Amino acid sequence: MSIQHVVGTGAEQAAPKVGVIGGGQLARMMQESAVALGIQLHVLVEAADGSSGQVIPHSQVGGAEDAELIYRLAEGVDVLTVEHEHVPDTILERVSHHIPVRPGAHALRYAQDKLAMRAKMDELGIPGPRWFAAHTGADVANALRELGGEAMVKTPRDGYDGKGVRAIRAAEDVTDWLENAGPEGLLIEERIPFVSEAAQLVARRPSGEVRSWPVVQTVQEMGTCFEVVAPAPDVDEALAARIHDIGETVAGALDVVGILAVELFLAPDAGGQLVPYVNELAMRPHNSGHWTIEGARTSQFEQHLRAVLDLPLGDVEPLATWAVMVNVLGSELADPRDAYPQTMAAYPRAKIHMYGKAVARRRKIGHVTVIGTDLEEARQQAHGAAAMLRGEKQ
Amino acid sequence: MSIQHVVGTGAEQAAPKVGVIGGGQLARMMQESAVALGIQLHVLVEAADGSSGQVIPHSQVGGAEDAELIYRLAEGVDVLTVEHEHVPDTILERVSHHIPVRPGAHALRYAQDKLAMRAKMDELGIPGPRWFAAHTGADVANALRELGGEAMVKTPRDGYDGKGVRAIRAAEDVTDWLENAGPEGLLIEERIPFVSEAAQLVARRPSGEVRSWPVVQTVQEMGTCFEVVAPAPDVDEALAARIHDIGETVAGALDVVGILAVELFLAPDAGGQLVPYVNELAMRPHNSGHWTIEGARTSQFEQHLRAVLDLPLGDVEPLATWAVMVNVLGSELADPRDAYPQTMAAYPRAKIHMYGKAVARRRKIGHVTVIGTDLEEARQQAHGAAAMLRGEKQ
Repeated sequence: MSIQHVVGTGAEQAAPKVGVIGGGQLARMMQESAVALGIQLHVLVEAADGSSGQVIPHSQVGGAEDAELIYRLAEGVDVLTVEHEHVPDTILERVSHHIPVRPGAHALRYAQDKLAMRAKMDELGIPGPRWFAAHTGADVANALRELGGEAMVKTPRDGYDGKGVRAIRAAEDVTDWLENAGPEGLLIEERIPFVSEAAQLVARRPSGEVRSWPVVQTVQEMGTCFEVVAPAPDVDEALAARIHDIGETVAGALDVVGILAVELFLAPDAGGQLVPYVNELAMRPHNSGHWTIEGARTSQFEQHLRAVLDLPLGDVEPLATWAVMVNVLGSELADPRDAYPQTMAAYPRAKIHMYGKAVARRRKIGHVTVIGTDLEEARQQAHGAAAMLRGEKQ
Repeated sequence: MSIQHVVGTGAEQAAPKVGVIGGGQLARMMQESAVALGIQLHVLVEAADGSSGQVIPHSQVGGAEDAELIYRLAEGVDVLTVEHEHVPDTILERVSHHIPVRPGAHALRYAQDKLAMRAKMDELGIPGPRWFAAHTGADVANALRELGGEAMVKTPRDGYDGKGVRAIRAAEDVTDWLENAGPEGLLIEERIPFVSEAAQLVARRPSGEVRSWPVVQTVQEMGTCFEVVAPAPDVDEALAARIHDIGETVAGALDVVGILAVELFLAPDAGGQLVPYVNELAMRPHNSGHWTIEGARTSQFEQHLRAVLDLPLGDVEPLATWAVMVNVLGSELADPRDAYPQTMAAYPRAKIHMYGKAVARRRKIGHVTVIGTDLEEARQQAHGAAAMLRGEKQ
């Protein structure tokens, strides 16, 4: 077995120990699975009373760039993983000389740097938008000309939830970003006329064993994931097989260990058939997989722990015809938990997850999942419960 | 809303807070639901590195009879509940002048004292074995004569998992217990010729709202629960309705708040029909309800938290045709987690729960649940996985 046990007398000393960098809701939900399996998480958190610091006894406060703290964290665990993409490669590489870092810096690079990702996808023959790297206004103007006069611009690093993404029609639309861009420049992408968005979640072990959950459909609102439906209603069997293949090819080629989320645009081809274009990659449990907590036999959080500990992966079979997840983005209430009485009374089938985060405008503070046999009913209930938690009048 | 919020700036301060006395696996599994709902548990544990102390940041070490510690615990929470029946009434009653204690001492009494329970069940017309209180050898001899020469003897308090229960055929068989019995004496019960055992789990709010999960069948091994199947294969619709009615009658009449588990013997009547006899009551999440984590829309742990916080109860619909739960009782392995690689490889559909407890002979250290459409397959997988975790050769 690849788990190294610290010698000790009690059950706690013998627990498999996973270090996690990042103290948000992903580590918090990972903790639920860790408790069930008797796995100990040691987490480097932004704040002691933040989302995961509240619920994980072995948490300590520190930044994701604090090399000394991360080396010390690594000394006490069997494997190190990350909850976000903001840990410097150099730190992860140094840690990997002592314990496994999963996913490794060589894989994480493609979730951190969108220009590197685009080049790699092309190399692998994975479908995506046409793209250009731009360092100057002239580069942007050239790209716009090639792409028919409109494009999406992305900062290669640190973008998320609609931040670091802008639609442009002229080089001047992005002058401010160009001035502040790093040496790698900006990513200019073809604007895909998508009719829907999808995501493929794949788990992969170091041995190469992979498991793919059903393709889901995602709905964004102002750049942030709002609704996820599993399985994706717009995706037929052939397209699902194509998307599975994309997910598993990327996971393998990039040597991802843990969860890989591939976000895709679906747009009609000349014949009217939907075809996929890879939009983004994430290498960690992902918002598009929260439905797996109730909707699949093995959740993405349990599976991530199994994968990074090099344990056999769990079955990913869905447990209901449909699962609908709706994010709670901000709230009119000082605390959405104040709406539990009416929400739970109106929606006894809704599974509510609140992340212990203070309310802020459009902040992801929780989510609701409903599983069932009737899609419209599940959708209505999940949206209704989320709206109550947001404090909206019903 | 009945939850009182401590004034504060952060989300953590505003969390509903539940005090729990007892640091075993029940509080540990309750924590998984508490994390999801953003509820904070404050737990009085036997050991800091025990099953729930490991995973609950707000835990402090102390005995269930330590009045001062319990009063202090109660000051920081909105409601107090218990994980076992060993907290003195007097302490709970005093706490209840300040915050709700759920279930209350007036209800818990019937889970603590089997003689009081038997008298109450008779008063309510709930079917059970014939019984006698015995203070002397002559009392025992009389009871044996009335019951046809054989009986079960129970210590009214502190019995569990087969402890405090003995089958007798003569007064001398119980002389040692009589000598040490308290003023209430011993409970002598008719030996019910049961063909199977069942349990009914009911959740009840202070308002009286109740929800009953399907009746389950339980198999004991040497006095300890070993296997639970939901729904109970031997129980037809009419008998299930009868057992639901027993559960809800008892929950209401005793004013239980939280989870009530009613354990029953099923024995054939003169016409060969199975009839129920109440065996034991527990007022807390119960081993017969662990299957609800994966097998029902709302688990007993989430439901207990909802009930004690006076929140509307969740839907209890089963999520699969069958759920089978098998306890991991002891292990040949120093740490059963060492068997994760082979167990997870052989049984990818098994949901493994380990409690972070050191291995000891026949100790409940974990459980495995499998849900599915084929009962024999689910049973085979759950038993197979549990056997591997016990370190048995396959």
